[in-house]
Amino acid sequence: MKIVRTVPDLRELLRPYRGEGSVGFVPTMGALHEGHLELARRARAADDVVVMSIFVNPTQFNDPADLAAYPRDEHKDAELAASAGVDVLFAPGVAEVYPPGFTATVSLHGPIVEALEGAHRGVGHFQGVTTVVSKLFGMVSPDRAYFGQKDAQQVRVVRAMVADLNIPTEIVVVPTVREPDGMAMSSRNRRLSPFERARAAHISAALWEAEVAVANGIVDAGAVVQVARKVLSDNAIDVEYLELVDADTFLPVRVLVAGPALLAVAAVIGGVRLIDNVVLHPRA
Amino acid sequence: MKIVRTVPDLRELLRPYRGEGSVGFVPTMGALHEGHLELARRARAADDVVVMSIFVNPTQFNDPADLAAYPRDEHKDAELAASAGVDVLFAPGVAEVYPPGFTATVSLHGPIVEALEGAHRGVGHFQGVTTVVSKLFGMVSPDRAYFGQKDAQQVRVVRAMVADLNIPTEIVVVPTVREPDGMAMSSRNRRLSPFERARAAHISAALWEAEVAVANGIVDAGAVVQVARKVLSDNAIDVEYLELVDADTFLPVRVLVAGPALLAVAAVIGGVRLIDNVVLHPRA
Repeated sequence: MKIVRTVPDLRELLRPYRGEGSVGFVPTMGALHEGHLELARRARAADDVVVMSIFVNPTQFNDPADLAAYPRDEHKDAELAASAGVDVLFAPGVAEVYPPGFTATVSLHGPIVEALEGAHRGVGHFQGVTTVVSKLFGMVSPDRAYFGQKDAQQVRVVRAMVADLNIPTEIVVVPTVREPDGMAMSSRNRRLSPFERARAAHISAALWEAEVAVANGIVDAGAVVQVARKVLSDNAIDVEYLELVDADTFLPVRVLVAGPALLAVAAVIGGVRLIDNVVLHPRA
Repeated sequence: MKIVRTVPDLRELLRPYRGEGSVGFVPTMGALHEGHLELARRARAADDVVVMSIFVNPTQFNDPADLAAYPRDEHKDAELAASAGVDVLFAPGVAEVYPPGFTATVSLHGPIVEALEGAHRGVGHFQGVTTVVSKLFGMVSPDRAYFGQKDAQQVRVVRAMVADLNIPTEIVVVPTVREPDGMAMSSRNRRLSPFERARAAHISAALWEAEVAVANGIVDAGAVVQVARKVLSDNAIDVEYLELVDADTFLPVRVLVAGPALLAVAAVIGGVRLIDNVVLHPRA
């Protein structure tokens, strides 16, 4: 596996694959876990060359303390990436991505960027995401890019960006990888104490309870959300949001009868912000 | 020459050139003249396949009357494009470029988008330009794209966008093509009456007078501008702006001693808005 830090070096390495083979791309912020590695393995199976980026993007953090606390361990990440079949690890510095004079913004509008994470982390969050992802796509020119369903809203936003800007990259969404107790893999999990980590398992448990309720025929959104909310409150989990939205439009769902809906949650445990989601399908 | 109207058809035609050959791209709003054809010939000489787009982009017009009056003649344009060596004429409808649900914006910030055209056509003008050009680059994935120096500020903005978003396209700038009397070629010129057209030649004449003044050692920006302004006022030409700015930063220049400066003018004759510019170099 090659490690490169500049865009010219990256493009030089990828030149032989242009037109000939497919370039698979896994953008990450490092602190790799099984979720990231699953994305890399999916790329390894489908593409001729696999590029992973590690870049903790400052512009998508609304909270400087969250940015400062974001885990970083490039040496460990490089070992893990290599083990998952990554060919090129692209780890640029901040000045390579945002050089002096940089002023561009790529932004979307409407509920997909304004709901949930957009409402709680601020409108700048997804603007930071769309700007950096469009830059990374410009740097890598991937045929396919792999994202985890755990960041469901980010996936929807990136899909919209790619469609709106006619970026010739296929977005592949990979199911959330979970711990044995159901907890969604996240770089932030390592900041939890063992006790907090045990309590955090109730986040996914709350989502499964809601899923069971829907399977049992409950269609009222308020009732579905209440099922999940009770699990969280019973375990004294501080909920930032817990909402049922249309999985495509991200508009609120009142009754679960039409297309799939997303039950999405953000919660804070021990000062660590965690998100998870489940897609709920109306009973046939 | 093939004429295509959809992005999938365009990509299918260009597929054989990916990685193998170079794709040259000439984005236009149609109403082709020698200036556009020169861009196409430059692409023809350098690239393996030449794509020209014709799309009158509604989002970069601040004035609906200007948009409605913008000349359109696709049949004639197709003949001219073929004669200049264009292989693929891409002429999408508005709904192909801006389908329902489209919400993206690509925007830059600072003097290069706020000065001159940005100040007079509104900040939305260059936002319309950067958004549509980034979309067209996504559709075509050109190795090189050709722009005319007549739209000097647009060239600077597109260069900044390509750098900021790491778009792997080389921007080639081609000198302004002029009529024998010096008038810059423009699609808008055909809207001038013969009398107005004759008067319009004083716009470029004013720029040459300023260039001569600089060659004679004048370095004070106010004095340089005054030389051009006198030519315009002597000919009763309605000036929207006439400014000397740094050719890179687009900040105002007070004394012409450092790098090249751009003397840019926008004037209205017979209700038709015309722009032109000259790059002035300090005397060695």
